[in-house]
Amino acid sequence: MPEPLATRLARLRAELAKQRLDGLIIGREDMFQGEEVSPGDERLAYISGFTGSAGFALITAYAAVLFSDGRYSLQMVSQTDPADWQCHTLPQYSLNDYLDQHPLDGLTIGIDPLLVTMTGYERYAESIGKAGGQITAIDVNPVDAIWHDQPAVPAPSAWRMDDAVAGQSVADKLQVLADDLRQQNLQAALLSRVDAVNWLVNMRGGDLPCTPVNLCFGFFDCDHGLTLLGDEDRLAPIMDQDIAVRPLADLPDLLALCAGDAVLIEPASLPQALSFEIAASDVEMVEGDCPVTPIKARKNQVEIRGFQRAHHHDGVAMVKFLHWLSGINPASYTESQIATRLEQFRSQQKEYLLPSFSTIAGAGPNGAIVHYRAVAGQARTLSDGDILLLDSGGHYQTGTTDITRTLLIGNTPADGDVAGAFTHVLRGHIALAMAHFECGATGQQLDGIARAPLWAAGLQFAHGTGHGVGHVLSVHEGPASISKRGGVAIEAGMVLSNEPGYYLPDHYGIRLENLVVARHASDPDFLCFETLTLCPFDRRLIRAELLSVIERQWVDDYHQKVLAELTPFLPETCQTWLAAACAPL
Amino acid sequence: MPEPLATRLARLRAELAKQRLDGLIIGREDMFQGEEVSPGDERLAYISGFTGSAGFALITAYAAVLFSDGRYSLQMVSQTDPADWQCHTLPQYSLNDYLDQHPLDGLTIGIDPLLVTMTGYERYAESIGKAGGQITAIDVNPVDAIWHDQPAVPAPSAWRMDDAVAGQSVADKLQVLADDLRQQNLQAALLSRVDAVNWLVNMRGGDLPCTPVNLCFGFFDCDHGLTLLGDEDRLAPIMDQDIAVRPLADLPDLLALCAGDAVLIEPASLPQALSFEIAASDVEMVEGDCPVTPIKARKNQVEIRGFQRAHHHDGVAMVKFLHWLSGINPASYTESQIATRLEQFRSQQKEYLLPSFSTIAGAGPNGAIVHYRAVAGQARTLSDGDILLLDSGGHYQTGTTDITRTLLIGNTPADGDVAGAFTHVLRGHIALAMAHFECGATGQQLDGIARAPLWAAGLQFAHGTGHGVGHVLSVHEGPASISKRGGVAIEAGMVLSNEPGYYLPDHYGIRLENLVVARHASDPDFLCFETLTLCPFDRRLIRAELLSVIERQWVDDYHQKVLAELTPFLPETCQTWLAAACAPL
Repeated sequence: MPEPLATRLARLRAELAKQRLDGLIIGREDMFQGEEVSPGDERLAYISGFTGSAGFALITAYAAVLFSDGRYSLQMVSQTDPADWQCHTLPQYSLNDYLDQHPLDGLTIGIDPLLVTMTGYERYAESIGKAGGQITAIDVNPVDAIWHDQPAVPAPSAWRMDDAVAGQSVADKLQVLADDLRQQNLQAALLSRVDAVNWLVNMRGGDLPCTPVNLCFGFFDCDHGLTLLGDEDRLAPIMDQDIAVRPLADLPDLLALCAGDAVLIEPASLPQALSFEIAASDVEMVEGDCPVTPIKARKNQVEIRGFQRAHHHDGVAMVKFLHWLSGINPASYTESQIATRLEQFRSQQKEYLLPSFSTIAGAGPNGAIVHYRAVAGQARTLSDGDILLLDSGGHYQTGTTDITRTLLIGNTPADGDVAGAFTHVLRGHIALAMAHFECGATGQQLDGIARAPLWAAGLQFAHGTGHGVGHVLSVHEGPASISKRGGVAIEAGMVLSNEPGYYLPDHYGIRLENLVVARHASDPDFLCFETLTLCPFDRRLIRAELLSVIERQWVDDYHQKVLAELTPFLPETCQTWLAAACAPL
Repeated sequence: MPEPLATRLARLRAELAKQRLDGLIIGREDMFQGEEVSPGDERLAYISGFTGSAGFALITAYAAVLFSDGRYSLQMVSQTDPADWQCHTLPQYSLNDYLDQHPLDGLTIGIDPLLVTMTGYERYAESIGKAGGQITAIDVNPVDAIWHDQPAVPAPSAWRMDDAVAGQSVADKLQVLADDLRQQNLQAALLSRVDAVNWLVNMRGGDLPCTPVNLCFGFFDCDHGLTLLGDEDRLAPIMDQDIAVRPLADLPDLLALCAGDAVLIEPASLPQALSFEIAASDVEMVEGDCPVTPIKARKNQVEIRGFQRAHHHDGVAMVKFLHWLSGINPASYTESQIATRLEQFRSQQKEYLLPSFSTIAGAGPNGAIVHYRAVAGQARTLSDGDILLLDSGGHYQTGTTDITRTLLIGNTPADGDVAGAFTHVLRGHIALAMAHFECGATGQQLDGIARAPLWAAGLQFAHGTGHGVGHVLSVHEGPASISKRGGVAIEAGMVLSNEPGYYLPDHYGIRLENLVVARHASDPDFLCFETLTLCPFDRRLIRAELLSVIERQWVDDYHQKVLAELTPFLPETCQTWLAAACAPL
């Protein structure tokens, strides 16, 4: 039987007292600030019970307060013990709001500087300072100190990605990076983004469930080359000899080699603990964005071909799954069983590695909860006539997929309003898929183009239209996005999602997502998108009379392409199903 | 005969030596940082000869370097003496680029702190410091010291705008401001935007050629009310008794009343000289955006009705002008004569006050120069078949107009490519005019909607799609814009321009501009635009077959509205012309 949460909290408070701390901030982040953390880094869940993917807690002798965003308002309350915990939803009620009402006069609040970025540390320090308290960076994490059965780090599983898959040798990538840094008069860069480091050395690994990376940092010195800062036993065996692997504790030695020189750091990803070390060194700390991020976002031709190949495999899996789904008795399956079955089809595809994120399968009203995750045992059983929103993806050896289809379950014809909304979402999707835009156009401008057809119909959705996608890396990748916040220009080679939606609370959710790659148009001053995803949209939910001639042609052309590309790789029964699914509107 | 520019420069250098300065920065700005400056503030033109609307010079003993943007690359060179001046185009070659090649080792560079904002001063200080020099804020402006016939300030002409035109009493406006400041825990605000101050006290004036304001600042203290900081002789006679008018030199007295309190200032508009005074006082300086700007941008119902009224007057003037233009012999008129004639028609309208900016009349290739201004004596004579781009506007007692029409001159039928481009620009214009968008949508998102039809046709334009327009104030007003930089949400009541374009260098320019006001749609979660401008588009340049049914209907509906609203106010010959100009496509 697991230890009661109340007991854990009491043991933590005892540990705080021992360390002479009046309180502690616990975030959900690990040292690497990715979307996923290893089980041994789930400190927030260990103490509070809350398993959401974002949030933080302030724990003092007399209060335990949990903050997360609107996705998790209910989950926070249901997973924590109301006798001990207060839960608040950001940004409606922030830490500052709480501290306005509960000052910290004279209290010392600890935070683990390895688990918070420079930017985050400064924000906490300001909030706590304004409330009359003071922040202190602790040496020993109090949660780790009381967590007796803390899960160990995952077994090593690093591998090299062949140059024929990566499309560029490590030496070439390092040369580009060196040129870039030298042009900015920088001697070195501390690379604190895990995906950037893995990409740079054509390495992947199994340290996280859905992001195929090895957790490590990198230090690149234009004269002395690259040093990976991480576990030597894991990384050294697969690295070329000219790339050093040293423990993170050796960072001061590397900084000493750059005494007096300008070293680039990224405050938004750099752990505060490392920023202390840099401040204590003799280098000139220059703040800026990770220099690898924009280079990595522009996929080379080999990476793009790899994405195409992965989408071919994924399309076969999706069509086999959809064919299977068309024949089931809905009442015999829950959302999570559907998700599991989809993952089985994917895992049977060649070159499949792992899911690119945890599948979202939301039927009926659950589809309207944008970040819904079906929990085994609590998932909804399907019914005839349900609208099922299914958002999933996989990493393959040559690329990453992310696809959402919204499906009519069973044989009851679709409701006209639902199909109308589906069709307007499809029109938004098509507007972006067909967009032709000038070089330099930003994701904000393109976002308006995708939303315009929905807005014209009085529909809106409260998430971005598209995110960048890494090459066998993070399924959410910067710097570009197609959204209100997407101020970065879209560039040729970027792989992005195209996923407008519409959600009617308590009824259904619709989202239609393909991945696209930005390409130069025939006029080199312009760009356009090529759709990578190969899978039909559910024709039964399309009201063809709401489409323009051009939109209808786009759907028919897309379905013909899907049919032509996938048919040779499908068993005969699937071929028949696909031909019907791809019939002209 | 005017003094040679070389002599002026020599006298300035002597003055610098007298003041023990090694150099001087001269901007084009006056203390009030508006688009226009009074003749006596044209220091940059006095010294350099360059009359462009933006730019600055660095003058040392051995060099005189002028910087402006791409609009003025040629004009800088043609107006300055190459023996004395180097000219550089921003941002391709910046002050920092110049200083990288010409360090200022040990030199002291002066700047007039009244004529540069806090933000600007910091930027100059950083550039000069990095180049090994140091900046110093001077007491006596060296240009003023040598400028013997410096034009005097314009004669006073302040007037009060009636509450029935302003739509809100001064007392109400001040109450809203006080509530806003108190909510932010601010005691006072130093208002350093001239249009904000004039709007706040329902005052207008004639201190500038095209912006009907009185040049002054304001200091608003939640307890002690509003003090105008400016010329008492001009302002006191028209102000209510509860509004004080004091010279700017009295600012320290006002600050003394707020000792220990938080006072809001806006670094982007506050002169550095005043920032010194605040720093020397005992107030807590809080940096932020002008609190009046967002309130002023949301026009009240009375202001909107005033805009409609002004556009009615302006439409009558435009149609009379277009009717006249249709009958001229093109070869008898230059661009500037056309502009003058248009202004005459406008000035005959009742309630007309003054032009809202200097008219742009660009025929043929001149139309492709986005900020072209015809200069009398050098203007192009019209030819049959010319495409004439005409961008003009007026301030009326109840509102401000800004309209661009692109016109076919003479009777030669339009070239198909030109008409195609015109039609695609019109499609962009219509897309924005018809847009229905969620509350919270930004100008960046709407910008994409306006550009999409042009991009789809392979056309682009290098300026914003729309700017805010003040109510009998600046024709360019923040905080919102419809552009790549328009991160502000569009709100109900905002008046904006809708002006996509297309420019084929050396051939022609096309821009189609109406003003629109944002309104709530029938669904209160959505907004839409109502077009204010009343004037037909040149039908001879529309290729109706390129328009969708909906776009064509929009043009026909718009023309019917123009016809119905204006006909009763036109002489008979004009009525006939307008009926033909507004005939269905």
